[in-house]
Amino acid sequence: MRQTFDETTDPSFGAKHLPLLRAEMKKQGLDGLLVLHEDEHQNEYLPDANERLAWVSGFTGSAGAGVVLMDRAAVFVDGRYTVQVKAQTDEALFERVELHKLTTWLEGVPAGSVIGYDPRLHSPDALSTLRAAVEKAGATLKPVEANPIDLAWGADRPAQPQAPVVPHDDRYSGESAASKRARIGQAIAAKGANVAVLTSPSSLAWLFNIRGGDVIRTPLPLGQAVVKADGTASVFLDPAKVTNELPGWLGDAVALESHDALPAALDALSGQKVLIDPAVTSAWYFDRLEAAGATIVRGMDPCALPRAQKNAVEIEGSRQAHIRDGAALTRFLHWVDTKAQVELPDERGVVEALEGFREATGMLKDLSFDTIAGVGGNGALPHYKPVGAKIRKMEQGSLLLVDGGGQYLDGTTDVTRTMAIGEGTADQRRMYTLVLKAHIAMAVIRFPTGTTGHQLDAIARQPLWNAGFDYDHGTGHGVGSYLGVHEGPQRIATAFNSQPLLTGMILSNEPGYYREGHWGIRIETLQVVTAPEPIPGGERPMHGFEQLTLAPLDRRLIDMALLTVEERAYVDAYHAEVLAKVGPLLAEGVQRDEAALAWLKGQCAPLH
Amino acid sequence: MRQTFDETTDPSFGAKHLPLLRAEMKKQGLDGLLVLHEDEHQNEYLPDANERLAWVSGFTGSAGAGVVLMDRAAVFVDGRYTVQVKAQTDEALFERVELHKLTTWLEGVPAGSVIGYDPRLHSPDALSTLRAAVEKAGATLKPVEANPIDLAWGADRPAQPQAPVVPHDDRYSGESAASKRARIGQAIAAKGANVAVLTSPSSLAWLFNIRGGDVIRTPLPLGQAVVKADGTASVFLDPAKVTNELPGWLGDAVALESHDALPAALDALSGQKVLIDPAVTSAWYFDRLEAAGATIVRGMDPCALPRAQKNAVEIEGSRQAHIRDGAALTRFLHWVDTKAQVELPDERGVVEALEGFREATGMLKDLSFDTIAGVGGNGALPHYKPVGAKIRKMEQGSLLLVDGGGQYLDGTTDVTRTMAIGEGTADQRRMYTLVLKAHIAMAVIRFPTGTTGHQLDAIARQPLWNAGFDYDHGTGHGVGSYLGVHEGPQRIATAFNSQPLLTGMILSNEPGYYREGHWGIRIETLQVVTAPEPIPGGERPMHGFEQLTLAPLDRRLIDMALLTVEERAYVDAYHAEVLAKVGPLLAEGVQRDEAALAWLKGQCAPLH
Repeated sequence: MRQTFDETTDPSFGAKHLPLLRAEMKKQGLDGLLVLHEDEHQNEYLPDANERLAWVSGFTGSAGAGVVLMDRAAVFVDGRYTVQVKAQTDEALFERVELHKLTTWLEGVPAGSVIGYDPRLHSPDALSTLRAAVEKAGATLKPVEANPIDLAWGADRPAQPQAPVVPHDDRYSGESAASKRARIGQAIAAKGANVAVLTSPSSLAWLFNIRGGDVIRTPLPLGQAVVKADGTASVFLDPAKVTNELPGWLGDAVALESHDALPAALDALSGQKVLIDPAVTSAWYFDRLEAAGATIVRGMDPCALPRAQKNAVEIEGSRQAHIRDGAALTRFLHWVDTKAQVELPDERGVVEALEGFREATGMLKDLSFDTIAGVGGNGALPHYKPVGAKIRKMEQGSLLLVDGGGQYLDGTTDVTRTMAIGEGTADQRRMYTLVLKAHIAMAVIRFPTGTTGHQLDAIARQPLWNAGFDYDHGTGHGVGSYLGVHEGPQRIATAFNSQPLLTGMILSNEPGYYREGHWGIRIETLQVVTAPEPIPGGERPMHGFEQLTLAPLDRRLIDMALLTVEERAYVDAYHAEVLAKVGPLLAEGVQRDEAALAWLKGQCAPLH
Repeated sequence: MRQTFDETTDPSFGAKHLPLLRAEMKKQGLDGLLVLHEDEHQNEYLPDANERLAWVSGFTGSAGAGVVLMDRAAVFVDGRYTVQVKAQTDEALFERVELHKLTTWLEGVPAGSVIGYDPRLHSPDALSTLRAAVEKAGATLKPVEANPIDLAWGADRPAQPQAPVVPHDDRYSGESAASKRARIGQAIAAKGANVAVLTSPSSLAWLFNIRGGDVIRTPLPLGQAVVKADGTASVFLDPAKVTNELPGWLGDAVALESHDALPAALDALSGQKVLIDPAVTSAWYFDRLEAAGATIVRGMDPCALPRAQKNAVEIEGSRQAHIRDGAALTRFLHWVDTKAQVELPDERGVVEALEGFREATGMLKDLSFDTIAGVGGNGALPHYKPVGAKIRKMEQGSLLLVDGGGQYLDGTTDVTRTMAIGEGTADQRRMYTLVLKAHIAMAVIRFPTGTTGHQLDAIARQPLWNAGFDYDHGTGHGVGSYLGVHEGPQRIATAFNSQPLLTGMILSNEPGYYREGHWGIRIETLQVVTAPEPIPGGERPMHGFEQLTLAPLDRRLIDMALLTVEERAYVDAYHAEVLAKVGPLLAEGVQRDEAALAWLKGQCAPLH
């Protein structure tokens, strides 16, 4: 696996890099600069060349922002990263502020100051909020031509990635790119537009059935596309990434152009009605199109929903990927329950063991995210990664929380299991069982068409709320098909989201509980929204969820007295399915592991 | 009880009134006119003088709209009123269209036409949507000075109501008006305003501790107020409504002015920062204030949340009102279960019986809404009122759904019970028990501060969804304290609502099931949000609901096999509380009814 940027950063970055940055800001006449985590592709994972916030401050979280003035600077992070930002940044140089206070902080910059921003990095929606705050301070926001960070970073800045862009076969995608282009073209026309500009690499990947390797953990080709209502298109890529087979794969209806040609291609849209998504596309595109005389039609990326609603081939691929991944996970859980319970390795050893079992499938392309393995109090940090001084060894009487996933050509996985190290205490069993009840409540829910994940979120929280507990993260996120492990627009969360859950959408179901300083519990499977079906004795067809993830639950941590008859039946049926589907892979083939199979049979026996 | 307008309307209104209206439109140079249900006070109930949509079309539903052109006209209603609009309007004169298609319909008016609207009746938010639609058609929207409907209605139009405005004693309100004015003044200042214009009669009633009688079912004084940040205020009322005691009650800090003085008072706000709520205040106010040179601060009516969060005195008042109302309801349910099961009266007789028992409390000021009593298929119409040809008699083997409430000085009630006529069928028992499970799920839920009703809605629907059923209305609405039985901003519904449920808010809990053409089931209580409290063995304090409504459930309709142990315990505990609190009122005093008490004891015995 490639090294990630956060393994190379350290708190001295600020002292080394802030003076260089301020010198460049001064040259451009700026009193301040907005520093975003996001790059122009608005992805969760960035190529190292675009880790600008990390280079400036040392902070490597997956979300955040910074503001650098001449005499002060601040890093803004959400609740997940309050511990991490303290470890990675220099307190003498950076104020650490909650992310939601960014606008308030900006309202306090000196009147008359000129704050620079890079229009390639901000969506128009986000920018208007920041602009209002800066103007409230009596200051002004000024777009930069060349990003002062990139200039200050200079020769040390890594090159932009040039991973080859390769075909993604129809036997995985389930629909030809020509078919997709035809229906996206119709969707563009239905919005009253002639053409759409797609800037989301995941849309590029989905629409043209291609994959890349420009960022870790997600097989994205960084690039853009212009798609016309007639289904023809232009794709803009760095020529160094274009493989010999690519032009033929894209076909005659798609022009392959250099990324340098994009600005001129936008200018050529003069007089056209251009569909473009203000939530995922940066202000630079809007400015350029408006200057060119195009009419902008604001709307959701037309690929977003078709990408989210997996077809039958993608769903069957996901099932197979999950059986394979479930066999790897079963071998890992067996290892935890036997060898590791004796040898008590540290979290890094746990992560390596799980990654080894996934690699042993022979089909792993990458992890789908950096594996989380938390022992004891580290498990109580929902986004903990075992790097640096906090790494703990497994210890008797504690819990081990492991959250990881794989990228396979036929599907993306993401699964969390929590295991007792030893037998588990009564307290741990109670809390594990409450989380399990939450998880089951979401797994079995049926719901009518039009229901949003926001409406369902409380279904999972109810067993915890009623006992006086809660978890401070969402219940579920969307997942791609050999694409991002976090993929919208669907979500199951307390935060408002108006997107109904549609047939074929894959979401996680991951309630949790975190005893700060002691241990954490999370149970996560991926599940796919099923088509509305009649219920015997009922009137209205209802959606439901099919469980994709197949890996046993830790039965030692289940307090039978807290489960209803129906919940117990759910666990038994789930375990029977795990054994029936995963068992055969442990019996023969590259994942053969007779000891793990014997162990799995015990784990999947009916609860008693 | 006063006669309601819908008892005087009929389908011939259109034929009589459209020609008169079109003549007035022609005089004003209008090709069309928007006809709203709402009047300038934006209340649910209107004085007869403001029933403009009913006068034009005959349609008397509590929501809807109309558009009258010179050669066609349409009435727009939501799903509740599709049956009613057909009965009340003339098909030859009015297209009947779904309410959500109003803008689409307006997009089809002839280009160049001039469509009039009365700016006193439209909120700015609603108006901007309509304007966009009319302009898309190439037509224009034009404000009228005098409403053509009022001119056409002429001498036949009823006078504006002039019910006396009376003090509402602190022993019911729990807080002096001076105290309320002081904190509302602070809230106005906190919004960056000097003054607020209040146009909601319920805010007028709450803030000044006054009540009126201008509309049925809700003791509202129609009027307006201007409140300054220092807590002083002016109240604008028709002088005919001012009682001798009112000036003294309002006190020296409140100027009592004629409603004629309001326009000049708005003009006098030149240069002021004026807080005003675009959701409840009509465009006329905004236009007038802007023309006067005031700076408009858009924000929620500052009284809305303080009014919604009942204080300890209001909650205790509501408890007492509900015990009294519960005794009336128990007597009624006993009557249904004995005399009525034999005599089988019609729905009108059922309504009169219930109203009689409520009046027998000696403390009923009004009903809180028109009583709904639906036998058989009429019960499957959630907003059915027994008027006209559809009235049915009670019949063996069917169900009776009764939904009614009272206005008492100490509280407003709203309760629905469903009773078997006879013993109930297996099918009826199954569906009643599923609705009961939904009701209980909402009654027992605990939730953290910040949770909205929108998040909780699915908690109640879950038992029905999982069996393949649903209901097409909200789960709960806010309720006032001797004010509107429908009071915002809180709601429990599928429709998005961002208002968290706060301590002291009263809401209904009323899941249902409707077997079209056969029978309907709804179980409704009012419940108040309790303060966040620690839960034994838990970590985080949680809100919950205290049940206010006290009336027995029909135990014949409960299928014990479908209830969990916890749900059964809930019913037994609820029934024990009903008997303990309502029983004493049946034992002595004005509601004494020994037969009903004996019956109640049987109803409230533990389930078996």
